[in-house]
Amino acid sequence: MPRFSKSVSALRSSAIRELMSLAARPDMISFAGGMPGNDLFPINEVEELFKGLDTRTKQSAFQYGPTPGLPSLLESLGSYLEGKGLPVGNDRLMITTGSQQGLSILGKVFVDPGDRVLTEYPCFIGAIAAFRSSGAKIVSIPVDEEGLDIDMLRQEAARPDPAKFLYITPYFHNPAGMLYTSERKLELVEAIQGRDIPLIEDDAYGDLWFSEEDRDRLVPIKATDPEGIDICYMGSFSKILGPGLRLGWLLAPPAIYEKCELIKQSADACSPSFSQVIADAFIRSGKIDGYVVKVREAYRRRAACMAEALRKHLPEYVRWNEPKGGFYIWLTLPEGADATPILKLTIEHGAVFVIGSTFDPDGSRNDTMRLSYCNNTPEEIERGIPIIADAIRKICG
Amino acid sequence: MPRFSKSVSALRSSAIRELMSLAARPDMISFAGGMPGNDLFPINEVEELFKGLDTRTKQSAFQYGPTPGLPSLLESLGSYLEGKGLPVGNDRLMITTGSQQGLSILGKVFVDPGDRVLTEYPCFIGAIAAFRSSGAKIVSIPVDEEGLDIDMLRQEAARPDPAKFLYITPYFHNPAGMLYTSERKLELVEAIQGRDIPLIEDDAYGDLWFSEEDRDRLVPIKATDPEGIDICYMGSFSKILGPGLRLGWLLAPPAIYEKCELIKQSADACSPSFSQVIADAFIRSGKIDGYVVKVREAYRRRAACMAEALRKHLPEYVRWNEPKGGFYIWLTLPEGADATPILKLTIEHGAVFVIGSTFDPDGSRNDTMRLSYCNNTPEEIERGIPIIADAIRKICG
Repeated sequence: MPRFSKSVSALRSSAIRELMSLAARPDMISFAGGMPGNDLFPINEVEELFKGLDTRTKQSAFQYGPTPGLPSLLESLGSYLEGKGLPVGNDRLMITTGSQQGLSILGKVFVDPGDRVLTEYPCFIGAIAAFRSSGAKIVSIPVDEEGLDIDMLRQEAARPDPAKFLYITPYFHNPAGMLYTSERKLELVEAIQGRDIPLIEDDAYGDLWFSEEDRDRLVPIKATDPEGIDICYMGSFSKILGPGLRLGWLLAPPAIYEKCELIKQSADACSPSFSQVIADAFIRSGKIDGYVVKVREAYRRRAACMAEALRKHLPEYVRWNEPKGGFYIWLTLPEGADATPILKLTIEHGAVFVIGSTFDPDGSRNDTMRLSYCNNTPEEIERGIPIIADAIRKICG
Repeated sequence: MPRFSKSVSALRSSAIRELMSLAARPDMISFAGGMPGNDLFPINEVEELFKGLDTRTKQSAFQYGPTPGLPSLLESLGSYLEGKGLPVGNDRLMITTGSQQGLSILGKVFVDPGDRVLTEYPCFIGAIAAFRSSGAKIVSIPVDEEGLDIDMLRQEAARPDPAKFLYITPYFHNPAGMLYTSERKLELVEAIQGRDIPLIEDDAYGDLWFSEEDRDRLVPIKATDPEGIDICYMGSFSKILGPGLRLGWLLAPPAIYEKCELIKQSADACSPSFSQVIADAFIRSGKIDGYVVKVREAYRRRAACMAEALRKHLPEYVRWNEPKGGFYIWLTLPEGADATPILKLTIEHGAVFVIGSTFDPDGSRNDTMRLSYCNNTPEEIERGIPIIADAIRKICG
């Protein structure tokens, strides 16, 4: 057996891999993946856009590019983000190979093996994997319907050896689906101001809101430019163009940006130029705006359909919230319940979801379930939700 | 200042970044980059191929794919590699986001901070960066015209605490341009057999041979399946399709592959599906074969043109070898010479190259220079080489 590094020896394969191969079976209704709907991708638009590019630009799609990203995309994306009030002028913008790479880079920039980092509970599984691959000890702070538990955050922030950073996904949380309130974000900022705890604000789903009235709550903390906090703001083209392009971005203060660039250089030299040329054309043509409106509406319909089915079929003791945006509905079972036998049962009947312990850095709490509605037809939702509800009833009574 | 990790604090920015921005100036003749010729990319072929794909395949280009790669590409690439005698059936094949990611992954799989790894001197700069980002202590063993110094390798292999792996680029070495002899490869294998030192065999340029008679020397060590060595064989689409797609591959024994997959999952979830769909269509259409013949011929002409110019203009005391393939010619100056003032002078006169110390893990030895001919017209080569030769004469006499 080869002599592996200590850090890789400590990593374990996630159960989600097997789940995803189950989810790909044609006879299975999958509420498991966080994958955009295949039917929604702007295939014709992208083909037309690429065709219309000049030869020089097409050549650049095949060539190496600068590590932080193609200048033309940094410019067009910069304008797009400035339109959301983000401080692109003062900070530095970097293209990453998906926002997963952004998480991996930030892990390496801040974490030595054994260092503590703060996340939410539940937490995006890709973040858990990325931080753990740098040897992080993850301390997770629960979220409720309005955001992170501020008392616990204050306790953590007051420690003499504060954690290396705080990672949050405040906008249509994966997996909890919730949206932070503006008040909770303010309290969070006050809790870590001047405490030497950089904030990683992950905003992969923010464009996918369902109601105008929630838009105030979608203003990034980064855009409010609070004093005394280094904020690394992350976003992704995965939900507003396609994850197969593997493009995300990272907006960070210059000192952090410089370290990120060093890590990215050694990680993959540069993000795919081909994808970057496409994303740049997609923004510059203005097609991204119409596309975001279209997918927002599509996910709103899917979410409403799933919410309707849940209202109709779920036993009353299962708690969940009407989705306000994004991809997910988070079910909380009665205390002490275990989602694993429920999953076994739904698989037998042709439906899959992700059990809550997947999103628990400790891997223990399992009285929750994540349902995705992003890649399902109404017909699949109406067939699948009764399978889920029946299994819950059989196991939980 | 944020509290960065120890490992990122130890990393330094490479001088090559500034050099590349110089090299991009339109008034500059650049022999610096290792970039394929922009004029050679198969733009029309790829556009046509993508247009002809069915909707389902086009959708998959926009979607997440499995971490080890799209099944269709793993199959077509697997057949392509089996055609070269590689043991695709016994080992496991993984798509990486450029071969740079392969190096980064292998660094993380094997290296804990302070661990020793063996490389060549000179060594590919991306490998130095990748291994160092895992905290490796790099021990470099010189190459001559036939391969690695075997006596030094034997000494290293006999240590009670052998290095974590040996990394070599035996086929049209970057930067040294040389091609290992079959004898030297055999000696290398014998030196590390049973010594618990995995071999990383990086074959990014092997398809770009200039003469049929060298083909025996191009058989990968991996294809000879020697006993008692774990071999990780790496390749890339960068030189036979385009680096902007960011696609490489890694063929590794199952136990190593599994650890690599864990690391890749946390690094970027999967390689770009868009690029993978293109590469798969490029192989399956058979267009890759004609394209490789075309670029091989183009680089052969550029190499011959540069060799001719060097013969004509360089002082006799500069040693170099006729290129047999790949992208590079490696110049060795008289002992004690320093390439840095030569570079300063050539920049003043409108030409750039890369100084030898860039490829020295210790950053000290600097009596060498790397010239690339891959992205230059004959006219540029004929104008640029006299600038290089004059500067050498002015500094070295």
